[in-house]
Amino acid sequence: MPHKLITQNQFTDSLTQYGDGVFETMLAVGNDIHHWDYHWQRLEKSCQRLQISVPEYEKLYQQLQITLTEQNNTFSVIKMIIARGDGLRGYRSIENQPCYIQFSISDYHFNPKIYQGLNVRICQTRLSHQPLLAGMKHINRLEYVMARRESEDGQFDEGLLLNYDNLLIEGLTSNVFIIKNQHIFTPILDGSGVCGTMRAYLRDTLPSLGYMIKEKALLLDDIGTADEIFLTNATAGIMPVSRIAGINKTFQQTITNSIRYQVGHPCSQQ
Amino acid sequence: MPHKLITQNQFTDSLTQYGDGVFETMLAVGNDIHHWDYHWQRLEKSCQRLQISVPEYEKLYQQLQITLTEQNNTFSVIKMIIARGDGLRGYRSIENQPCYIQFSISDYHFNPKIYQGLNVRICQTRLSHQPLLAGMKHINRLEYVMARRESEDGQFDEGLLLNYDNLLIEGLTSNVFIIKNQHIFTPILDGSGVCGTMRAYLRDTLPSLGYMIKEKALLLDDIGTADEIFLTNATAGIMPVSRIAGINKTFQQTITNSIRYQVGHPCSQQ
Repeated sequence: MPHKLITQNQFTDSLTQYGDGVFETMLAVGNDIHHWDYHWQRLEKSCQRLQISVPEYEKLYQQLQITLTEQNNTFSVIKMIIARGDGLRGYRSIENQPCYIQFSISDYHFNPKIYQGLNVRICQTRLSHQPLLAGMKHINRLEYVMARRESEDGQFDEGLLLNYDNLLIEGLTSNVFIIKNQHIFTPILDGSGVCGTMRAYLRDTLPSLGYMIKEKALLLDDIGTADEIFLTNATAGIMPVSRIAGINKTFQQTITNSIRYQVGHPCSQQ
Repeated sequence: MPHKLITQNQFTDSLTQYGDGVFETMLAVGNDIHHWDYHWQRLEKSCQRLQISVPEYEKLYQQLQITLTEQNNTFSVIKMIIARGDGLRGYRSIENQPCYIQFSISDYHFNPKIYQGLNVRICQTRLSHQPLLAGMKHINRLEYVMARRESEDGQFDEGLLLNYDNLLIEGLTSNVFIIKNQHIFTPILDGSGVCGTMRAYLRDTLPSLGYMIKEKALLLDDIGTADEIFLTNATAGIMPVSRIAGINKTFQQTITNSIRYQVGHPCSQQ
């Protein structure tokens, strides 16, 4: 197979050498970043855990606002990477150096179809158990790239990921919630998975809307016996699931849609 | 903390987004790449496992040779990254696109001191179990970056990594071998760790030098009761270990040094 070639004197950036960084994918309406505080909280905590210098809050927020105003999109998706910067040989890194932030802003096309009920598969690729990295949106995402490349991926809207103990962890680009007898459960993410900002928001908000929510170790069986299932992420918000390959039922969407309307979505509130 | 900022229209490279690639660190004497066949074999197999297009063998080898000749170093270290290239949104990738290769060549300073007996620690950071990625030298190396940042790292020559089942896997930048009653053992690497080129070479070569070698699940206890321990990597070759923090003994080096002299090292053969 032909290949392109790049030569240089020295590799120094630990992002390209080791996937050493974290990222945030954010939705903006005009120059207003939806759930900015949740994104900032995760970003700050992840940088601290990885000992990457925490960016300057005020300066970063201002830089994002200026770029969003310049772009002048109605809705935007911001993808932002925070990286340690220059490293040294053999995984060594320089203490307390400023991080760098790389971001791209693109037009977001609001798609109401994803709220009609997703068709979901269970990925064959399993997630590993690594408490030191769990919860963060870090750049070591090879497991997810492999799961996306599974042959049948194109036929489904999303894939669900289990770990090697057969526990349900999350979707490829979403967190997962199941509703059973009016109770809402979401997987514990202390060994694998990403603690999504929408997940954090729902944990804070659902009790005040009258819903019980609990983090729990969930098995495939818990999915099969669920009344409703929904997925969440920072751009789409709450998405009902109607079918899961291998499970012979159509899930209800009554409570999911009720929550979805109560929580709202910034693009449909315009 | 101050930070640097980079803005762009769109992220497309799956290396910087997901750590989606593999690398090789190689030693060259003049324009001759030591153990090139072992590096190529691992590179080809890893690309196939990750469904990254395999580079053109002849063209790549020629490009490396030309750059090495231009550099005109006596000894060089080549660090080479092979990456999928442009990706699509949400972990999706383009089928069968050419990979790209990025390499840096730097002067190698041969350091005979590392053969006098290393002072080694056991890392607190544990490696996760992920058979889908095990053995490859892929770019999801956050575990190793974290292990290197452990507070006491600076006092030691190398760190040894265990997995969550307390099995010994490898060194941070090396494979590990223990010698007990004239038998040589090295960890099985089917769930974690990198299958080093020097490790592969020794597996092929030691039997013809009269040594028994076996892959085995090894615990800390097996280290404590070993007669000798040595580490290997592509640049340094075979390095004897004399002390391991927490283990109250000095390891012998007789068989290790005998093997080391029989195998030789390209820099000391000049």
